[in-house]
Amino acid sequence: MTHTRTVELEGHIIDSGMMQQAFGLVMDLGGEFDVEQFDVGKQKDKTSYCRMAVSADDEKLLQEILHELHQIGANLTEPVDARVEPSPADQVVPVGFYSTTNHPTDVRYEGDWLSVENIEMDCAIVVDPDGPEGPRAYTKVLNSVEEGDLIVTDEAGIRVKPPERPRDSSGPFGFMQGGVSSERPSDSLIGEIADALRETKEAGGKVLVVAGPALIHSGGGDALARLIREGYIDMISAGNGFATHDIERGLYGTSLGMDMETMEHPRKGHKHHIYTISEVIRAGGIAEAVEEGLIKEGVMYECVKNDVPYVLAGSIRDDGPLPDTITDTIEAQNAIREQAHKADMVLMLSTLLHSVAVGNCLPSSAKTVCVDINPATVTQLLDRGSSQAIGMVTDIGTFVPTLAEKVLDEPAE
Amino acid sequence: MTHTRTVELEGHIIDSGMMQQAFGLVMDLGGEFDVEQFDVGKQKDKTSYCRMAVSADDEKLLQEILHELHQIGANLTEPVDARVEPSPADQVVPVGFYSTTNHPTDVRYEGDWLSVENIEMDCAIVVDPDGPEGPRAYTKVLNSVEEGDLIVTDEAGIRVKPPERPRDSSGPFGFMQGGVSSERPSDSLIGEIADALRETKEAGGKVLVVAGPALIHSGGGDALARLIREGYIDMISAGNGFATHDIERGLYGTSLGMDMETMEHPRKGHKHHIYTISEVIRAGGIAEAVEEGLIKEGVMYECVKNDVPYVLAGSIRDDGPLPDTITDTIEAQNAIREQAHKADMVLMLSTLLHSVAVGNCLPSSAKTVCVDINPATVTQLLDRGSSQAIGMVTDIGTFVPTLAEKVLDEPAE
Amino acid sequence: MTHTRTVELEGHIIDSGMMQQAFGLVMDLGGEFDVEQFDVGKQKDKTSYCRMAVSADDEKLLQEILHELHQIGANLTEPVDARVEPSPADQVVPVGFYSTTNHPTDVRYEGDWLSVENIEMDCAIVVDPDGPEGPRAYTKVLNSVEEGDLIVTDEAGIRVKPPERPRDSSGPFGFMQGGVSSERPSDSLIGEIADALRETKEAGGKVLVVAGPALIHSGGGDALARLIREGYIDMISAGNGFATHDIERGLYGTSLGMDMETMEHPRKGHKHHIYTISEVIRAGGIAEAVEEGLIKEGVMYECVKNDVPYVLAGSIRDDGPLPDTITDTIEAQNAIREQAHKADMVLMLSTLLHSVAVGNCLPSSAKTVCVDINPATVTQLLDRGSSQAIGMVTDIGTFVPTLAEKVLDEPAE
Amino acid sequence: MTHTRTVELEGHIIDSGMMQQAFGLVMDLGGEFDVEQFDVGKQKDKTSYCRMAVSADDEKLLQEILHELHQIGANLTEPVDARVEPSPADQVVPVGFYSTTNHPTDVRYEGDWLSVENIEMDCAIVVDPDGPEGPRAYTKVLNSVEEGDLIVTDEAGIRVKPPERPRDSSGPFGFMQGGVSSERPSDSLIGEIADALRETKEAGGKVLVVAGPALIHSGGGDALARLIREGYIDMISAGNGFATHDIERGLYGTSLGMDMETMEHPRKGHKHHIYTISEVIRAGGIAEAVEEGLIKEGVMYECVKNDVPYVLAGSIRDDGPLPDTITDTIEAQNAIREQAHKADMVLMLSTLLHSVAVGNCLPSSAKTVCVDINPATVTQLLDRGSSQAIGMVTDIGTFVPTLAEKVLDEPAE
Repeated sequence: MTHTRTVELEGHIIDSGMMQQAFGLVMDLGGEFDVEQFDVGKQKDKTSYCRMAVSADDEKLLQEILHELHQIGANLTEPVDARVEPSPADQVVPVGFYSTTNHPTDVRYEGDWLSVENIEMDCAIVVDPDGPEGPRAYTKVLNSVEEGDLIVTDEAGIRVKPPERPRDSSGPFGFMQGGVSSERPSDSLIGEIADALRETKEAGGKVLVVAGPALIHSGGGDALARLIREGYIDMISAGNGFATHDIERGLYGTSLGMDMETMEHPRKGHKHHIYTISEVIRAGGIAEAVEEGLIKEGVMYECVKNDVPYVLAGSIRDDGPLPDTITDTIEAQNAIREQAHKADMVLMLSTLLHSVAVGNCLPSSAKTVCVDINPATVTQLLDRGSSQAIGMVTDIGTFVPTLAEKVLDEPAE
Repeated sequence: MTHTRTVELEGHIIDSGMMQQAFGLVMDLGGEFDVEQFDVGKQKDKTSYCRMAVSADDEKLLQEILHELHQIGANLTEPVDARVEPSPADQVVPVGFYSTTNHPTDVRYEGDWLSVENIEMDCAIVVDPDGPEGPRAYTKVLNSVEEGDLIVTDEAGIRVKPPERPRDSSGPFGFMQGGVSSERPSDSLIGEIADALRETKEAGGKVLVVAGPALIHSGGGDALARLIREGYIDMISAGNGFATHDIERGLYGTSLGMDMETMEHPRKGHKHHIYTISEVIRAGGIAEAVEEGLIKEGVMYECVKNDVPYVLAGSIRDDGPLPDTITDTIEAQNAIREQAHKADMVLMLSTLLHSVAVGNCLPSSAKTVCVDINPATVTQLLDRGSSQAIGMVTDIGTFVPTLAEKVLDEPAE
Repeated sequence: MTHTRTVELEGHIIDSGMMQQAFGLVMDLGGEFDVEQFDVGKQKDKTSYCRMAVSADDEKLLQEILHELHQIGANLTEPVDARVEPSPADQVVPVGFYSTTNHPTDVRYEGDWLSVENIEMDCAIVVDPDGPEGPRAYTKVLNSVEEGDLIVTDEAGIRVKPPERPRDSSGPFGFMQGGVSSERPSDSLIGEIADALRETKEAGGKVLVVAGPALIHSGGGDALARLIREGYIDMISAGNGFATHDIERGLYGTSLGMDMETMEHPRKGHKHHIYTISEVIRAGGIAEAVEEGLIKEGVMYECVKNDVPYVLAGSIRDDGPLPDTITDTIEAQNAIREQAHKADMVLMLSTLLHSVAVGNCLPSSAKTVCVDINPATVTQLLDRGSSQAIGMVTDIGTFVPTLAEKVLDEPAE
Repeated sequence: MTHTRTVELEGHIIDSGMMQQAFGLVMDLGGEFDVEQFDVGKQKDKTSYCRMAVSADDEKLLQEILHELHQIGANLTEPVDARVEPSPADQVVPVGFYSTTNHPTDVRYEGDWLSVENIEMDCAIVVDPDGPEGPRAYTKVLNSVEEGDLIVTDEAGIRVKPPERPRDSSGPFGFMQGGVSSERPSDSLIGEIADALRETKEAGGKVLVVAGPALIHSGGGDALARLIREGYIDMISAGNGFATHDIERGLYGTSLGMDMETMEHPRKGHKHHIYTISEVIRAGGIAEAVEEGLIKEGVMYECVKNDVPYVLAGSIRDDGPLPDTITDTIEAQNAIREQAHKADMVLMLSTLLHSVAVGNCLPSSAKTVCVDINPATVTQLLDRGSSQAIGMVTDIGTFVPTLAEKVLDEPAE
């Protein structure tokens, strides 16, 4: 093991599992470690510190190990600058480029630590030495990389700070850590999510709702519309199907001949679906259709009336689509990215596709709630990395109305 | 195709799908049919009639086909008596014994049609020629068959009448056939189940609840206890785990150190579980533990206080068990059978094992509601044959409280 | 019930369930029917015929009922021409436009029945009176509709012919109707799919594979590559993720540091993922990367080497994307549509999004096999309408290798 | 925090996660800790040691915390004897009884450490001071506890040693820790399970198969029968349904008229099911039915012919049952317990009920493989505590044949 570098970890590295992960990574990837210093936090509010030398048989493997250690917050000790290399062509990264986590990150440039702006996972970090206020660093997704961009490579000179598992119950999501103590767990958990939503708004935070069509089918549309009307939702991220079903329900109401309870016969009554889109196209768009009185209620109606911006991202299974739908997936990602970067709290409601897309752009500091009746969907979303995320496997058709009642502290209209 | 018999079908045989099934069965099994008469119901409230000759290459295959046709209500036209044969030994049926469906069934004996008592699927039919009021026929499960019992064999002389799909909305479950029209489907579907529950009680019917431990873990226990206290539940069918978790929750409340939200770490806090059982054993049973003040609240408490009989059936994964748990599975089946035969409406809540056991004993006329967050469980239960069953894939932790609110027409305590 | 029209159904309308559906639809939607003639097919290979008057209280409801009856093959008896109306604007359909099924369809125009070209569900039908060889009719999706297009409206003058459930075992998928008789069901079912695949190729048919990234992760990539190399696959429909994972696996092999068994930690080793895309962009595309020797094996490699066209449709959760990925969802749909219209057999392997997109464009005559380990995915795909579709809930990582062995009749390389 | 005790942890306490769990438990339950000594293992093969004082506001909470710490291997430092107290009555434990984990455990009695025999979770520990070879300690489940048994209470004087996560690949299940490196993951994972099975047998170990009816339905019966015939399986744990389906398949073969592919219509062909049971009852049991030639093939046949003992545990959803089925659940548990205590490797194949029952009796040292197509089943089984367990979400109908081929190194018969 002739190739060695020294990394350090600091914080609640034992109770957050960081230490375990670090030891595990090194061993799983075939490296060795030698702990040079280990100061354990003697009480629960004391942080720990570990410095260890990591070795591997060749430089490539060592880099691999260091890369993975980085992802979890083990940073190189050496006070060296990050290496930067110009991008050889548009949308092409240099060999060994540094791929970001979604955790707060600093890069060292000419002796100074720059905080990386708009942190988001799986991006390149670009250093701009000539920012108006001095050097700056920010993330770029691959398709935004331009020839000549100074891209950070390797792992040296970079510090990652994963949020630690909060131990006390003071934060909005503190309730998840202490165990659920209520007598009516599902109900009380929704109550605590309602509290977190209210607290986020009271603190001036922004709430983003990511919603799938099942929310409309299962009867959650009215409750979401109400939350928008009352000012609790700042942004909506959805797809063409969500908006169309919502509008169609307003246009055709209960006579629409489809089974709103299940997704099992999704084609029944499909003529209304196409005609709804056609009518919105005729009007010129959703806002225009609201103005001319075609759309009189629902989630999209409340968005227009209350100036709540929405992003409708296109997908290859869309009908139509509506004029408001962004059909280019790169453009749609950029619009989603902008929303995600503003969000302090995100409710992901019954959509895997859109939730993954939003989740890809979220920093790990955003509070996230994932709700779906399918446990696999909830698990997959929680696995994607926000340490502030909580999941709930429940019926969206009872979740949203119950949430609205609890947030607004009054029964359903 | 030299072996032929004639069967007839009558009723709403087209819109109930019976006709389609009959044609399909004959073809799938390699037989032939020749429709001799077909009178279609010209309007929706008119019944249809079909008489057809069914042929097969050999008698064995023909019997196979006739057996399957029987299951769906196609009866032999010949006005012959049913064949009976004495059982050769205890728990042994004669070759070619008739295996029941769960539909109302008649057997022809000495020229008279006897209605089969206690109809239940997969049983033998025993004819007792010397009943006090004349000949009678009733079902016996295999393990109750005694040597010499006169067992019905073959398919002749038997009439099966599957309940037809109700077309109008007048019945308690009529709401499922007409599509769900409410603006809040999950919520409104629970409302309609609440209506059906109230109507069943008002009509003097009996309501059986089949419940699994997840009901307690997800926070539905208080609401079920309340429904029992208010007189809406007549019988409980559950297992040792359900009762123990319910009692344990009363004994240890919220300090029990386990995650009541999930089943994911079922062993945590398990000492309380064992100790709860030990304490009930010490007291001599659940009723005694209520009397001596050990158990002060919960589902089992309300059962004891309100004289609601319960069956706790044992399983090989049980701890303990409680003294009230019936550890012999045959005895437990008999106790379940007795409950099932009395029930007019059955709520199957978050338990596959107990729901299957109860469902095995239910006649197809019992109204059944299956609720589980796992779609596979709901599907499996609905597939087992009650044409009056409806399923709902939802969170039991929001379902039971919402149901209680709607039945009692007042918010949670 | 003052509004009445007469419809007729012909074919295996009882055993295909068409009759049951027709009666059910009329009743569920609040109409009445009066059967004027009913000739039952007396044996299994004889078709039945039904003519009935359908009535409703108002014209709107009657149209609704007639529309739904159409979807299942009940056609108006009157020998009238279809009504056509010019589209009022681009992407806008006239009120009451006829929305297609995926079944073979004719429209009557100036006394002649025109077969509708490129039939696909949820489209408008455009009549072109001045085709080079006389009038023709074809489908258009909403976003292709141009101002002035003559669009078919209402239900009159249109005939739909749903494929009937095949009763004999002569067709490639006949094996599904007769029950599964083998001693090793999963294994033998794959064998029969292999037979169907070979028969399709021998008959000169085209095979389309729709594949998701799980196919690569679960180890099915080599087997699929082999089937392509041996000439059994004619087209691939996938996404950016599928292609990238396939290429990445070739580039980084087994050292890629990620868990190829599960999707559970999709971000691990993600740097390779981004770098793979970057390298393909640098090369100029997948074909160029194959040419320059960057890509040396795998599914995409075999596609390029064997001139098997692929469509990579973009999605908002993509990284990159690869230069070959079509980022505009409308363009991608058009490319998918072109593939779907050519396909005689479609294998949908572990992808809901792409399978739905392809399924939306398939005529009901295409043989379709849906394979996924998630039963909900299989169910959702089968519900979308191809009467020739079969589903299999199994592990894609054992399915594809076993299929390849059976098709090629030799063990894995 | 006036109540304090000192505990110590030793071993790979960081990379096994034990340290993280210990810190987390104390904090979650509202206690405090003060680390008095912490010696970190400086390289991967070096163990760590931690001694810490744990405090709580009252003795009850402290005991709660110490109990939970015990479960994960944190033992009290004080060299005191375990407290024992006589059981007040049959099946009743004293207050504060010690509830076992499934890890190797020692209790200190009169200054000596006794290794607890037949360790199994959720049991009481009984100390017998007058064993023939001196004092001994062993587990008793609640229903075996007899009045006067000396039961260990509290946490003092007890040492628990959870197996540590193996780091190297030398052990039979080492392959799971190092990541899956094969090019065909599902296939290669089965290969590694086959290796582990062969190695277990070569080392003289016992292999227990726990099987559900889905194994027969999905076509895995022949392969399992073959593994028994070839001597790879030492014991079978199953239910009445498994045995009946296996025998029925031999008796009625492919003509049995039921869909062996799915469990979706479990009642079709049910007459054969009942008749099969009746015939075995007539014969006197499974062994007798094999002898008289009624049963000629299958899993149960091979068990009889090869003297492989089986336990058939009854359940309330059973038909019949077969004479071999143990209908009393306590008796059945005892039979299962005996099997479990002998097993070195356990294959849990497509049954949640029986797998949980077996898992409840397994020490954490038994190698366990859980296979099911339902991820929830696999997760639930893995969560129950064996640190040597691995799970695989796959199709049992391809898993068992593939396993047999790989174990026997020859294609299917």
